[in-house]
Amino acid sequence: MDPGLTRCGIAVVDVDARRRAALVHVEVAGTPPTAPLDERLLRIDEAVSAVLAAHRPDRAAVERMFANTNTPTVLGTAQAAGVAIAAAARAGVPVGLHTPSEVKAAVTGHGDAGKEQVTTMVTRILRLDAPPRPADAADALALAIAHGWRGTALGAAAGQTGLDTADLASRAGRSQFAAKAPARARQRGQLTAAQRAWLDAERTAGGGRRR
Amino acid sequence: MDPGLTRCGIAVVDVDARRRAALVHVEVAGTPPTAPLDERLLRIDEAVSAVLAAHRPDRAAVERMFANTNTPTVLGTAQAAGVAIAAAARAGVPVGLHTPSEVKAAVTGHGDAGKEQVTTMVTRILRLDAPPRPADAADALALAIAHGWRGTALGAAAGQTGLDTADLASRAGRSQFAAKAPARARQRGQLTAAQRAWLDAERTAGGGRRR
Repeated sequence: MDPGLTRCGIAVVDVDARRRAALVHVEVAGTPPTAPLDERLLRIDEAVSAVLAAHRPDRAAVERMFANTNTPTVLGTAQAAGVAIAAAARAGVPVGLHTPSEVKAAVTGHGDAGKEQVTTMVTRILRLDAPPRPADAADALALAIAHGWRGTALGAAAGQTGLDTADLASRAGRSQFAAKAPARARQRGQLTAAQRAWLDAERTAGGGRRR
Repeated sequence: MDPGLTRCGIAVVDVDARRRAALVHVEVAGTPPTAPLDERLLRIDEAVSAVLAAHRPDRAAVERMFANTNTPTVLGTAQAAGVAIAAAARAGVPVGLHTPSEVKAAVTGHGDAGKEQVTTMVTRILRLDAPPRPADAADALALAIAHGWRGTALGAAAGQTGLDTADLASRAGRSQFAAKAPARARQRGQLTAAQRAWLDAERTAGGGRRR
């Protein structure tokens, strides 16, 4: 989820046992800036809740925000993010937070990649016929891919505690390495059996298949 | 509602036909800063939703935030506010926004009143035996009173569009003027028949009864 009051990107991807990511759903929800704030936030709440109910993802991710971000829209974005996170929590879906540079690193191999580079890689990774538009859709997809890949290695709990993203990024940049998709990882702070199995498999497997 | 992740003040007051405000409910919900963000926001969501379900207020109010607020907690506060506002909207309760100075002016007569002054006036207005603590409880009560008083004159819709608060403040400072409590004002942008009736009555009534 790439929150915003005017444009909230909501993307669902499926990461299979071979670490291959596929587009399941993407939409950009929102309301015009002239709408009352309560209606705007309710729209985000309803849109996120509808996607969660329809697709029942194992986990969700939202971009991590920083207090020193000082743009006119930062408060609205934070409010929308709060609503999106709470909607996921209410649906029993654990939420991971990723910095923009973590997401860029995961999908492009470079934490300082530009928007076009992210869009290009998202298009390639998901084998889409055309780049996803608008940018909010591509951003939400990139976040979903990054979180899905991270999850295949260490699950949602690790997303909160600092997995080595440089490693993920370099792998993402050079291959679509196959991985066993983890079972639902509702419990924080510990890996599921499937996640441990995948981790062991990854350690011994070494490289990966090029796309 | 005075949102915050650690301390979210939630207050319900009843403003009767004589503009007299009475305490119905007040609580401070929240989670320790060490809890995961999704759990923290879910707690706010559940606390606000429970109060709305239990007391079914006609309207709700949240403090209006400003983008130039640059404290370490501003993003968490904005996220909590977003969740609180969405919870109200989901429950069909219209949400008004008030600046801190509007609230201070309404309950003390001065937009630059200090926290103790606000607490003192809240204690007097609600005829409490002791000042409400912590400050988050008093702040939520002050906001509820300010919004309730404003509502008795012009309803929630006017809360969004700029009622003359100086006038409300001066009246609040000198009297607890009697007013017909408005019917539920679910429709935005227009006054209910009861609100129009009260407005007419207020215009002709002139002064008010001193407490």
